[in-house]
Amino acid sequence: MLSYPTPFTPPTKEDDRLSWLRLIRSRRVGAVTFWRLIGEYGSAEAALHALPGIAKAAGVQGYEPCPEPVILKEYQAGTAAGARLLCRHDPAYPPALAELADAPPVLWCLGDPALLSRPMVALVGARNASSLGLRMARKLAEGLGAAGVTVVSGLARGVDTAAHAAALPTGTVAVMAGGVDATYPAENAALASEIALRGLRLSEQPIGLEPQARHFPLRNRIISGLARAVVVVEAAARSGSLITARLALDQGRDVLAVPGHPFDGRAAGCNLLLRDGATLVRGAEDVLAALAPVTAAPEHAAARAPEPEPQRTWRDMATLHRQILDRLGPSPMAEDQLIRDLALPSATIAPELLTLELEGRIQRQPGGLLSRLD
Amino acid sequence: MLSYPTPFTPPTKEDDRLSWLRLIRSRRVGAVTFWRLIGEYGSAEAALHALPGIAKAAGVQGYEPCPEPVILKEYQAGTAAGARLLCRHDPAYPPALAELADAPPVLWCLGDPALLSRPMVALVGARNASSLGLRMARKLAEGLGAAGVTVVSGLARGVDTAAHAAALPTGTVAVMAGGVDATYPAENAALASEIALRGLRLSEQPIGLEPQARHFPLRNRIISGLARAVVVVEAAARSGSLITARLALDQGRDVLAVPGHPFDGRAAGCNLLLRDGATLVRGAEDVLAALAPVTAAPEHAAARAPEPEPQRTWRDMATLHRQILDRLGPSPMAEDQLIRDLALPSATIAPELLTLELEGRIQRQPGGLLSRLD
Repeated sequence: MLSYPTPFTPPTKEDDRLSWLRLIRSRRVGAVTFWRLIGEYGSAEAALHALPGIAKAAGVQGYEPCPEPVILKEYQAGTAAGARLLCRHDPAYPPALAELADAPPVLWCLGDPALLSRPMVALVGARNASSLGLRMARKLAEGLGAAGVTVVSGLARGVDTAAHAAALPTGTVAVMAGGVDATYPAENAALASEIALRGLRLSEQPIGLEPQARHFPLRNRIISGLARAVVVVEAAARSGSLITARLALDQGRDVLAVPGHPFDGRAAGCNLLLRDGATLVRGAEDVLAALAPVTAAPEHAAARAPEPEPQRTWRDMATLHRQILDRLGPSPMAEDQLIRDLALPSATIAPELLTLELEGRIQRQPGGLLSRLD
Repeated sequence: MLSYPTPFTPPTKEDDRLSWLRLIRSRRVGAVTFWRLIGEYGSAEAALHALPGIAKAAGVQGYEPCPEPVILKEYQAGTAAGARLLCRHDPAYPPALAELADAPPVLWCLGDPALLSRPMVALVGARNASSLGLRMARKLAEGLGAAGVTVVSGLARGVDTAAHAAALPTGTVAVMAGGVDATYPAENAALASEIALRGLRLSEQPIGLEPQARHFPLRNRIISGLARAVVVVEAAARSGSLITARLALDQGRDVLAVPGHPFDGRAAGCNLLLRDGATLVRGAEDVLAALAPVTAAPEHAAARAPEPEPQRTWRDMATLHRQILDRLGPSPMAEDQLIRDLALPSATIAPELLTLELEGRIQRQPGGLLSRLD
């Protein structure tokens, strides 16, 4: 059922872009699956054509890609909202984000995409930040902005809000968990409008989507994926900001943290990161110093297509499926660990994982983790 | 004038101990010079005998070692005060301190010397500490004490006072800048008395000496020299605690620091240390974790005498004196750097430095630094 690899074609025509949108909006196709399908079939259109057959061969009956009218409706709504669809190989697509294995295939952008071509730093932290934390977020955002750095954050309450507001005059990017037009929280509606006018809002999610809990980790990988460095301004132990920080480390980003006194519980997460080797931040200068070694901007990834992977026979696949499923459970396991356990090349296992994912038998989670669903 | 090296004899007899006291109390004989003289002459008595000749040969007229009656008076005063003279090779002399190149040859001890045989941690910090800093000093002292660690500090106001007071029930050592009986500051007289009763006070300085500014850095090298690790509890930038921390690093001690928010200036020194690689401390557990890798107590240094150094001819010395003095100025220079610049073995240069020091032409400072005096 799997075809041989086909030369990759970037989506230059309108139809191609709509096919990309349709493929990523199809059931069980996440970013990683998207890139594997593109790698195997050469184009979104070919992948969409092949999907029902892959599903059927894997025992999933009646699988259909996302219907075309749904895609047309999203595209028209986005355009009507003044948003622009950025595909991964477009020149304006941020190169650091493009390098991720789970790079968003498409991003809806509302505002000035030129902000994406400058060095970016993410400021993240507590929603219920202390006044010290909010002051630090403002001070860092101002100092980074003055140095020509775009400040990236998530438009949440607390640290995010303070960072965006302080960076409005110099340039800020808000990564939305829901649709690029779905402002959340409601109290940040005015700030969100300002950012669309003077900064940039972006989202990989469909226009109009209201954010749900599962969208926030996906959004966080874009925040850290855009940035050269992630600064945790204030974070308690076991907070979402710590998850963002760990994800950033997995992505090869520098993680920095603002210390606080150990008797202040709101600093516990930052102090934990510092003990684990994060760079200590006293002010914007410390962040800029951490960026300094990167003198040249990373090479633009536009010309780089994912490598096609070798194909396997159906018999091999059936055997491997069982081996993989036997090793996975409901608790997430690192893909690397699974590959080591199976003692097989990654290129052999990867297509099987794709199929199992499309079958809905395993699930991918941020950080290269896999869990079994059935 | 210099004799050939003589086998080293530890000061077991009363007379030997008085000779040690006399040698270290003699003009221009600091701890480093003391050990070089002992290394070259085999005993304090022989070194005392040779000193006037070395001085004369170097052009210093009328040099006399410390008069014997002064030493007898100090010894009697110390004994009358209930203090005990600990010489470097005594079994009770703390082994970690004995390993320093500038180990104090003698220490006056008032209290329980058994506290020196337990693992020791130094708590240092600001005299004008914040209430957070004082609370942290108490909490760390209590936690370390409960784990069987002796808490070492300097009996100063602020962090030192809080640390000693909290560690009184479990064991604390106060290292005095002046004489072991010269309580400073006056407001700590009651605490000092308690420490002599339930803990230990010690000093390398003569009984009765009122501390002066130059005594504090010498005292600080003993604080860090006793300890396996030095914890800076709270310190502003450019504070004395930072100097202690750097000295501790030179001595190969672990340096740890309690973080604070960057907007709190009283944490600036600690945050600087953390940026430079100090271990972050949130509580006593973090300090104990840093000590954990050291499972066995360091070998006792009692049997280890300083290595005798090869001797040079007078002609070699005259040439080298000029080369050394040409390279030194009033700003301190590292001895290592000087040795590299001269491209001669350390064993060749060391005796010349001794002579220049005895001549009063160069001065040794903590941290292996040399400066020119004339």
